[in-house]
Amino acid sequence: MLPQEIKKFVEIFEKLPSIGPRQALRLAFKFISLGTAKIQETAQAIAGLKKIKICPRCFFIYSGDGKACQICSDKNRQKDVFLIVEKETELISIERTKKYNGLYLVLGELTKSGFLESWQKMRLGVLKKIIEQELPNQKAKEIIIALNPTTYGDLNANLIEKELKNYAQKISRLGRGIPTGGEIEFADEETLAHSLQRRE
Amino acid sequence: MLPQEIKKFVEIFEKLPSIGPRQALRLAFKFISLGTAKIQETAQAIAGLKKIKICPRCFFIYSGDGKACQICSDKNRQKDVFLIVEKETELISIERTKKYNGLYLVLGELTKSGFLESWQKMRLGVLKKIIEQELPNQKAKEIIIALNPTTYGDLNANLIEKELKNYAQKISRLGRGIPTGGEIEFADEETLAHSLQRRE
Repeated sequence: MLPQEIKKFVEIFEKLPSIGPRQALRLAFKFISLGTAKIQETAQAIAGLKKIKICPRCFFIYSGDGKACQICSDKNRQKDVFLIVEKETELISIERTKKYNGLYLVLGELTKSGFLESWQKMRLGVLKKIIEQELPNQKAKEIIIALNPTTYGDLNANLIEKELKNYAQKISRLGRGIPTGGEIEFADEETLAHSLQRRE
Repeated sequence: MLPQEIKKFVEIFEKLPSIGPRQALRLAFKFISLGTAKIQETAQAIAGLKKIKICPRCFFIYSGDGKACQICSDKNRQKDVFLIVEKETELISIERTKKYNGLYLVLGELTKSGFLESWQKMRLGVLKKIIEQELPNQKAKEIIIALNPTTYGDLNANLIEKELKNYAQKISRLGRGIPTGGEIEFADEETLAHSLQRRE
């Protein structure tokens, strides 16, 4: 009953994160209702993503002719501090705070295996090489491991900390505590303990 | 910090139903991670939606050379029963039950104004004309008004029923009751009353 064109659209979109078959179908009808000009604009916007490159230093994304991303190429950023995130969106969240002026490493999403994938080890290797080749004493001033404070993220953070301990004067994690607007009554014991120990 | 190509993508996708700025950004990174071949395939799938046409009889969608959609063109369907829905996705849900073999009218989403828009009145007009010109006695055997059983849907269904009362031998609504898997304890009074009156 559905035209081939809609089936094809649904087939692609239903596999995307947090879009199931129903939402994919709703999106198809939404695009159709927006008309051919908007459909064309959307198709071009998606095709435009082909121009996006991955930075060979921090593995964040960029476009244009440069050999590295905008952050790695920025002369005003601190070159001896690195912050490790899993995902690009986390890097963007941290940039939005405007409280960090160092460099990054995007490690890629950690799998449930509890081990780093070979391509993630390669990314850590790139960071090590940058530190060895570009920094005095072959040590970073600080490496901040910004993984999610879950059992699972902590496990991986410990592994990464061991891997990098000879590459930085200091290795740190993001501070834990009650989030702004959060309620003490509902905070778990560990968060509460952290927020007591790190009281401001 | 974000490349122009990603900003453009987010600008379009964040406005789509149930996709906000965060989800749009996540989708952009998902597409980038899928690689240029998949990006190209997706762009083409979206551009393909330009071929979708709106059926001039029932206002459902179709593609190809025909002058009407697959349902309106199907010789095996009952031509004197019509079912009115708001949305295409509702038509699809009803088709999937395989319990209905008549024709449809897609009315388009009802606005909160409580009145039919002029283009929706025009759609009702098309249905009236089909009934007048193609059916004996200029009456349908049945018109089923399948709007959501909300206060608001009921109001509109009443209005449409008045509009169409001279065009059908019988005008009906979808049956109400406890949904399969639903719990009597949590059913509202009206649903429970309906399910008692219409007990099977």
